Amino acid sequence: MDPRIHIITLGVNDLARAYRFYHEGLGFPTSRKPEEGIIFFQTGGTCLALYPKDKLAEEFSAELPVSYAHYPSIILAHNTRSKEDVDAFLAQAVAAGGKLEKPAEETFWGGYSGYFSDPDGYLWEVAYADSWKFHPDGSLVIE
Amino acid sequence: MDPRIHIITLGVNDLARAYRFYHEGLGFPTSRKPEEGIIFFQTGGTCLALYPKDKLAEEFSAELPVSYAHYPSIILAHNTRSKEDVDAFLAQAVAAGGKLEKPAEETFWGGYSGYFSDPDGYLWEVAYADSWKFHPDGSLVIE
Repeated sequence: MDPRIHIITLGVNDLARAYRFYHEGLGFPTSRKPEEGIIFFQTGGTCLALYPKDKLAEEFSAELPVSYAHYPSIILAHNTRSKEDVDAFLAQAVAAGGKLEKPAEETFWGGYSGYFSDPDGYLWEVAYADSWKFHPDGSLVIE
Repeated sequence: MDPRIHIITLGVNDLARAYRFYHEGLGFPTSRKPEEGIIFFQTGGTCLALYPKDKLAEEFSAELPVSYAHYPSIILAHNTRSKEDVDAFLAQAVAAGGKLEKPAEETFWGGYSGYFSDPDGYLWEVAYADSWKFHPDGSLVIE
């Protein structure tokens, strides 16, 4: 698989505040608005995303460990070119000593994704969706 | 400033174990070895780095909040083209509502760096060093 982090998602307590900090304060470019519920910035290299922490918790698991509910939560994401690649990457991570945190399944946003954690507990989402497009260099197109 | 995350550093409990997971298990490319004390992977887009969590705590602050000592710690890094840009970026972050966590200073590894946190507490290092080189697309050259 292409060794690449496509998205870093920060779980935030106040999406509008975080949007103002990164977009208006630091000048990170985006066409998204907080009203849409999620922000993707067209950052160089890896895309930075902002998502409400409570929504992140819901999406990941109904039985989230207390650490993710009370502390800053970051998810690294790798996007694949096919559904089969999601399953293959998750299997590779488990074979390497990672833990399957959530098997891949169809998501409410029209994709297919699952989660594993690395040996230190860092969460990775592995995702595929027809709607995601890639730049020639392999990074995601953020609109 | 160029809106870009250059490095994502994961603070790990066992550097050799994390190295095996990412390098041997997932195939992330690097010429580094755990004996060198830090691992940089030549990942597409943003560089993934592994660093012992206790060392990360020392480097960041002797008075680290308990959350960083006991929970997974991730630092996002932005690398500038000059020392002056480090100070300018930190000042911009503070003006935008961020918190200066550690003023910029000369580092033991020959660079110049400081830290701020965003409104949700996520840590960013802003760093400059003569020894860092950039690819034409703005990403870091990882050797």
